[in-house]
Amino acid sequence: MNIPPDLIAFLRENDNFFIATHINPEGDALGSSLALSMALNAMGKRTVVYDRDGVPEFYRFLPGHEAIRHSCSGLQPSDLTLLLLDCNTPKRAGIEGFSFRKCAVIDHHETESDFGDIRWIEPKAAATGMMIFPLIRELGVGMTREMAINLYAAIAIDTGTFRFGNTTGEVLRVAAELAEAGASPSFISAGLYETWSEGRFNLLRLALQTLEIRNKIAFSFVTREMFGRTGTGPEDTENFSSFPRIIKDIRISAFFRESDDDYWKVSLRSKGDINVAEVAALYQGGGHKNAAGFFMKAPLKTAKEELLKKLSELTERAPRD
Amino acid sequence: MNIPPDLIAFLRENDNFFIATHINPEGDALGSSLALSMALNAMGKRTVVYDRDGVPEFYRFLPGHEAIRHSCSGLQPSDLTLLLLDCNTPKRAGIEGFSFRKCAVIDHHETESDFGDIRWIEPKAAATGMMIFPLIRELGVGMTREMAINLYAAIAIDTGTFRFGNTTGEVLRVAAELAEAGASPSFISAGLYETWSEGRFNLLRLALQTLEIRNKIAFSFVTREMFGRTGTGPEDTENFSSFPRIIKDIRISAFFRESDDDYWKVSLRSKGDINVAEVAALYQGGGHKNAAGFFMKAPLKTAKEELLKKLSELTERAPRD
Repeated sequence: MNIPPDLIAFLRENDNFFIATHINPEGDALGSSLALSMALNAMGKRTVVYDRDGVPEFYRFLPGHEAIRHSCSGLQPSDLTLLLLDCNTPKRAGIEGFSFRKCAVIDHHETESDFGDIRWIEPKAAATGMMIFPLIRELGVGMTREMAINLYAAIAIDTGTFRFGNTTGEVLRVAAELAEAGASPSFISAGLYETWSEGRFNLLRLALQTLEIRNKIAFSFVTREMFGRTGTGPEDTENFSSFPRIIKDIRISAFFRESDDDYWKVSLRSKGDINVAEVAALYQGGGHKNAAGFFMKAPLKTAKEELLKKLSELTERAPRD
Repeated sequence: MNIPPDLIAFLRENDNFFIATHINPEGDALGSSLALSMALNAMGKRTVVYDRDGVPEFYRFLPGHEAIRHSCSGLQPSDLTLLLLDCNTPKRAGIEGFSFRKCAVIDHHETESDFGDIRWIEPKAAATGMMIFPLIRELGVGMTREMAINLYAAIAIDTGTFRFGNTTGEVLRVAAELAEAGASPSFISAGLYETWSEGRFNLLRLALQTLEIRNKIAFSFVTREMFGRTGTGPEDTENFSSFPRIIKDIRISAFFRESDDDYWKVSLRSKGDINVAEVAALYQGGGHKNAAGFFMKAPLKTAKEELLKKLSELTERAPRD
């Protein structure tokens, strides 16, 4: 990974940073932002970390999360240098209305945007955290335990704790160094995966009861009535779409979340070479090859039948795993 | 980790090895045995790998598993040198009836046995695979892709794919080296975690429906009737006991599997400092601090009430996590 020399100079020369990341933040967005903020603080720089949507409850074990702001009140953007992390347009961070002094982008997502005075984009990096790790070293800052926990969580989330296809030897080697710098793998895993509310667990049970398998495609759903019955909300369905993947014969999992009357958020997860982003694109959605999403407006039964047809065409075209 | 020099000499001096591991083998037992067998073959030695119970279906992605024997017919144990892996008594391997020429034990479990001419026991090693990795290096054998896959699977299983408390920087560093030697983390994870039958998934749904939470202790069960209804068997309940751990407030999960009329196999899983092995010992069971098991003879309701009482005493004594 080659860190652009002008990014290093940019970070050294400026003093007041506004670190922003994408809306609906997950571990990579939050952990990378916090670790970079800590490193800049260690260099004597001032930082504000911002996320429009705040910090979801189950990420509140990340050191320093209390300082993340979800309001810009009292700030003068024109005095601040923007660092946009884990996304590459102000819109993705919900800050399109502000004008910053200068801006650098650090991201591992593919992009067609050219926003930013300085841009460091590494689509091959498994996580933005995998970029912040060598960046902190290059800045000459020692890796503290707090930085290590944030970066470990960042990398763990984006690699499914070292289970996804983006888990390389390099990823595991960085994780080893972070563990040696004080990040506890079991503490972080418990923080990420063992913090469900009882309501969320009950919602999963209800969702699993809806599972139906047709043509090696798993369909499941949750309704607003189920949210009401279990005292949960849409954010509690994170990863529900991935669950049916554990079944050997399943090639695609399609998960429907009721958003409004006959209006469904659909999440698709696939295995191997099946590119579900193609189907998401038909509905103006987005995503990657193995994980994509979009909205459908139709009664559930109709929506399922329509999607079954499109997904079956996809699996017939894809090579066998 | 210090490999006993006499073990190295022992492996160099002998030529016909019988590598045996424990009954009901899991990934560490199988992967470690296969990798060591391959390394000895590369040194020109002859090996037989033996497991009394054969290879469970979901471990049949391990390279070389086809060669594992579950019968000793045609063999002359008195001509063979026994290597006992991932266990430390012939009884655990179901070979107590045989007399071998010599024997070495390689294991990471605590033991009070003194079986073996040479014994290498490392209770601090996360997996036997973590011992075989440096052993192969010390023997001067190059790490092949096949060995790497076996050792990666061995270490992944015993660390919950890097989520358990035994996951150290060293574990992740070895995993990195194995990935660089050709073990694909995503292929192995899919092999370990995405190979459920539909019946097993249906059994999990039924088990989750039985979940009951009292005093932060989760109780769930499966009956023989459920096995019949889903076309599954006892081996399909592996890890069911761990599932309720994802709920934040749960401190212990107790899972009951019906074995005979009013006769239950109980698996306990705990978080943090709660030592469920203490309760298992009351019922002549065994295990470790966070994972233990035993049998109870009583109607389910009675068994649950009795256990609830004992487990509640345990959680009251344990410090808060």
